[in-house]
Amino acid sequence: MIIVLKPGITKKQERSVIQEIRKLGYRPHIMRGVSRTVIGAIGDELTHQSLETLAMLFPQIVESVTPVQKRYKLVSREAHPENSTVQVRENFVGGKKFHVMAGPCSVESEKQLMKTAEAVKAAGATMLRGGAFKPRTSPYEFQGLGEKGLKLLAKARKETGLGIITELLSENHAKMVAEYADILQIGARNSQNFQLLIAAAKTGKPILLKRGLSMKVEEWLLAGEYVLAHGNCSLMFCERGIRTFETYTRNTLDLSTIPIIKKESHCPIVIDPSQGAGRADLVIAMCKGAVAMGADALLIEVHPNPSEAWSDGSQQVSLEVFAQLMAELRPLIQAIGRN
Amino acid sequence: MIIVLKPGITKKQERSVIQEIRKLGYRPHIMRGVSRTVIGAIGDELTHQSLETLAMLFPQIVESVTPVQKRYKLVSREAHPENSTVQVRENFVGGKKFHVMAGPCSVESEKQLMKTAEAVKAAGATMLRGGAFKPRTSPYEFQGLGEKGLKLLAKARKETGLGIITELLSENHAKMVAEYADILQIGARNSQNFQLLIAAAKTGKPILLKRGLSMKVEEWLLAGEYVLAHGNCSLMFCERGIRTFETYTRNTLDLSTIPIIKKESHCPIVIDPSQGAGRADLVIAMCKGAVAMGADALLIEVHPNPSEAWSDGSQQVSLEVFAQLMAELRPLIQAIGRN
Amino acid sequence: MIIVLKPGITKKQERSVIQEIRKLGYRPHIMRGVSRTVIGAIGDELTHQSLETLAMLFPQIVESVTPVQKRYKLVSREAHPENSTVQVRENFVGGKKFHVMAGPCSVESEKQLMKTAEAVKAAGATMLRGGAFKPRTSPYEFQGLGEKGLKLLAKARKETGLGIITELLSENHAKMVAEYADILQIGARNSQNFQLLIAAAKTGKPILLKRGLSMKVEEWLLAGEYVLAHGNCSLMFCERGIRTFETYTRNTLDLSTIPIIKKESHCPIVIDPSQGAGRADLVIAMCKGAVAMGADALLIEVHPNPSEAWSDGSQQVSLEVFAQLMAELRPLIQAIGRN
Amino acid sequence: MIIVLKPGITKKQERSVIQEIRKLGYRPHIMRGVSRTVIGAIGDELTHQSLETLAMLFPQIVESVTPVQKRYKLVSREAHPENSTVQVRENFVGGKKFHVMAGPCSVESEKQLMKTAEAVKAAGATMLRGGAFKPRTSPYEFQGLGEKGLKLLAKARKETGLGIITELLSENHAKMVAEYADILQIGARNSQNFQLLIAAAKTGKPILLKRGLSMKVEEWLLAGEYVLAHGNCSLMFCERGIRTFETYTRNTLDLSTIPIIKKESHCPIVIDPSQGAGRADLVIAMCKGAVAMGADALLIEVHPNPSEAWSDGSQQVSLEVFAQLMAELRPLIQAIGRN
Repeated sequence: MIIVLKPGITKKQERSVIQEIRKLGYRPHIMRGVSRTVIGAIGDELTHQSLETLAMLFPQIVESVTPVQKRYKLVSREAHPENSTVQVRENFVGGKKFHVMAGPCSVESEKQLMKTAEAVKAAGATMLRGGAFKPRTSPYEFQGLGEKGLKLLAKARKETGLGIITELLSENHAKMVAEYADILQIGARNSQNFQLLIAAAKTGKPILLKRGLSMKVEEWLLAGEYVLAHGNCSLMFCERGIRTFETYTRNTLDLSTIPIIKKESHCPIVIDPSQGAGRADLVIAMCKGAVAMGADALLIEVHPNPSEAWSDGSQQVSLEVFAQLMAELRPLIQAIGRN
Repeated sequence: MIIVLKPGITKKQERSVIQEIRKLGYRPHIMRGVSRTVIGAIGDELTHQSLETLAMLFPQIVESVTPVQKRYKLVSREAHPENSTVQVRENFVGGKKFHVMAGPCSVESEKQLMKTAEAVKAAGATMLRGGAFKPRTSPYEFQGLGEKGLKLLAKARKETGLGIITELLSENHAKMVAEYADILQIGARNSQNFQLLIAAAKTGKPILLKRGLSMKVEEWLLAGEYVLAHGNCSLMFCERGIRTFETYTRNTLDLSTIPIIKKESHCPIVIDPSQGAGRADLVIAMCKGAVAMGADALLIEVHPNPSEAWSDGSQQVSLEVFAQLMAELRPLIQAIGRN
Repeated sequence: MIIVLKPGITKKQERSVIQEIRKLGYRPHIMRGVSRTVIGAIGDELTHQSLETLAMLFPQIVESVTPVQKRYKLVSREAHPENSTVQVRENFVGGKKFHVMAGPCSVESEKQLMKTAEAVKAAGATMLRGGAFKPRTSPYEFQGLGEKGLKLLAKARKETGLGIITELLSENHAKMVAEYADILQIGARNSQNFQLLIAAAKTGKPILLKRGLSMKVEEWLLAGEYVLAHGNCSLMFCERGIRTFETYTRNTLDLSTIPIIKKESHCPIVIDPSQGAGRADLVIAMCKGAVAMGADALLIEVHPNPSEAWSDGSQQVSLEVFAQLMAELRPLIQAIGRN
Repeated sequence: MIIVLKPGITKKQERSVIQEIRKLGYRPHIMRGVSRTVIGAIGDELTHQSLETLAMLFPQIVESVTPVQKRYKLVSREAHPENSTVQVRENFVGGKKFHVMAGPCSVESEKQLMKTAEAVKAAGATMLRGGAFKPRTSPYEFQGLGEKGLKLLAKARKETGLGIITELLSENHAKMVAEYADILQIGARNSQNFQLLIAAAKTGKPILLKRGLSMKVEEWLLAGEYVLAHGNCSLMFCERGIRTFETYTRNTLDLSTIPIIKKESHCPIVIDPSQGAGRADLVIAMCKGAVAMGADALLIEVHPNPSEAWSDGSQQVSLEVFAQLMAELRPLIQAIGRN
């Protein structure tokens, strides 16, 4: 911890702060600067109590308190310098092969799902996405087919061999959803629902953790830390757009998270351009950027007839657009040396 | 729904859009403007399918689609033109009397809690707040005393007569927490955890719903709608600061929500300046603003020794500051005609 | 400056950083912590070169670099512990008397201005606002009457005795506008147009500096520092709402700036609720909050017939609403001990 | 304009609104929906007065007023369906060839500039950037070499043949800067300094307009409209990051603006990853994304010795990193079919 004192502090005031620092288990180290005195407090910040209350206890004396240790450990690249990969059936996300997870926002019917599954497989996707439990802003909107949707996903997997990714909404469903799904998705609204993260981690299934709408990178990494700290190492981060002042797009897809997550963590990073833009017409360009910047996978909403979708129709691409998208991505995937 | 077409659209293109509008259950109404044609689609937007996918289905033809109905009903002032009040033991939040809910961020020990409870009661508070289950950004931080904390809160209520407000974190705890608490608090991180909202609503206890860090007013009202739609009318909204670019304060307390909630909804509005500012030195001014602008209650973090608090010490005020705060609020409460 | 090194750094790597710190004019001070080494660099950060490039020069070694000195001096409360007041004709903003500056968004005609001036004076305002040069988002919108508008403002002052505040848009107009106005307003869009700030400062007239739409408090204080550093001490800060994700209001009025500016600076703080909310129906509540929280003055848009205003009609209040507002503010102004 | 009335409005109330609509020059068109009545007001919104004040004039009757016309004309793709190109000496930005503009944040000395100019030219850049007038957050920071810097830029052009881009800060410098520069850059802080935009437009030189820190796409296009409306068609938009809640990077580079600007406008789009990230270590990934997504050019800060830079050292890349960057971009530029 670094404690900066205000200008013009007396020795007596300084001593009272130093005494408190010692009391809280740190060893103080005084540096007298040109206009201010700075105290370095040596000790393990993860085990000792925080010193941030000093600013409040001594409002006339202490100007600021800054921690020097990173708060996340297991997800950090320091803990695991190599990239980690997450196995999903026979595939490995985070390795040399680039993956595409595609499918409808909501599972609506067997016909809709099978048609989509076959088409996305034919176009090159390796996993099938589809929502069975849907978190909806309004209680009057379609809330998903529930377990019936999970059964349809399992059937689609059986017929196509695609791995299944679907959202987990409730602690009470963790066991059930884990029986059907290959990857449990934690949605943006639940990204700091720590009880749900713990329940998901305990199933042992791979977890895809979306970034919350106003989640700082550090908070996202710490939410991921909950998963690893509860014994599950198969974690993927997924950027899906943050909330900003801009209203042209539904969210602002923050592609800079690709190099940032690669720098701070060993876990794979997945990009969801459908949620990020909220507009199908921008999805292709977003996907190209994600590939070029080093994302490990894409998560794309695809629907056989977007205008009749039961949820979020305006951000889903048609089967034809998806096939075109995959064709346009290929030269970029090669250009960056992946396959 | 209002559908705006692009300039220079042919009659044939127009017809294709109109046909789709009819197919989705709306009655189209065409208006030809100076540079664009606008189609009003008449029908109940809450029961019919959304037309927002038209912009995607006809990207060359449709420029924008805008809904005209409000998406919330039960929480709206239209549904209940008078202010509603929420009964908490013998008190009514939302009536003429102004209420203060005060207490520590976390329940830490019997001594800490009893000392605080007695002091806040003496200063004029009518309810006691205290966290037993704590949602913490890092898995390595203090997570609360759990049921032991609830028992201490119940004991404090027995000794002081203060109503108890505490946070509910998990669907699985709803029944247990409801046994001890008078008000269930839904925290900012869980404000769109709809499963938790439903579980809380079903207990029948009053709910205090905090605004999420990046929640728009409409989304907040819709989250409240989940509570009323599941049969619980005792809802209070609580503003606790939103996330913005500013870093001086931890969050930006949006006091404009006081007149906004009063205008849009009949439910009481409570202000939490402790979370909002994240700095005890700004709490007094924030409370004064909230009172003058018409808030129904305040939720304030108070600790007998903030510098030794186990969580969020820098935003808790001491017992002495709290007493001073209450004294300074009194003339303002009178000046606006409340008591 | 505080330089935090990464974990597991060798002595040799450490020496290379220390050498560079010395080269840039600072005296290094090493502290070895549990997992990281921290170097305090002693020296005057306002005269020496910044050390922030160390993180880049030694990307494998240095984790972060943090300054410890505040970057603003003349506007800071440390430089001038008492409140400063700004004289505008016979009035002093920042003293015990609370001031209201009111008038139309744009000066439109002699009749409109005189009617407004007389009405706001009768209701208790001490200054008249009115835009002669208007910064408009679109080049096709009304850009203000220019010097003709200034002449009308001067005439209104002559007849009512009210001081005049009007916006300065161009360096080239500084001299001319200063001839007519008692206060030069620097608008939100120009809050970091430093050339304009310097030109305004040099006129010697009082300056009202609005906060930019996405300006951090520190940047706002530094923009004010430009005014004082160019020899003009008559500076007022004016909060007018920041840009956030919320769309219910045009901007989010950040009333916490009142205690913040009072804490960091000696200059008066003025609140503009009209721009802040962009909605006349919220203006009264906002004004009440501002008074209770300790603002020194209000800047309110008033128009004899808002629906026919040439700009921003939806945020201007009518003469009747303004009179009601002033009546409702009086008990609050008394309750906080001002007049 | 689309005017939505509140539920339960009487015929008489409706008539009063309709009367006002006629008075303001529009032809009303009534549509009765299930719960609300909607009025379409036909007329040219760019020449008639706005109807937005209706919501204020009839607060009990009118719920919302929405414009249907786009506010920008000359910059819109509707006005000019083909891509437009901007000629800079013998180069055309916006055509098939991808361009890189590179150079130091500030011009510091002849040696620094020449060394950089030669290196960036050798690596493939076609234009040289360099600041002579610098907008600095604090008045105590280096403000640029002024005209001396411009002369050095002109000398570098003479020796290398690279076109020159430099920032214009003051209306009074427009003529002088235009004598030296090939492109005038309008910085983020001045993006709505309309007087500066007009002065820049009138020089006839190509303009690169950076997006403001909290500028919506529509506002950016309208600021560009000021340039075209004052007779200058050589406009390029430049995304350089917006201000969000995230603190890991200095700004959040919004790469979605590439497909958005391409969709809404015919003008070229340039990406500035140096300002966007504020961190040299993220610049390479950002550039790759920009290329893949269809940007027309990059604007990159390059310095022979970033750690000794007089401004923004932490975001400038070294000559070696720049050469490596250019090598890594080539396969992507080819993969998307540009050269």
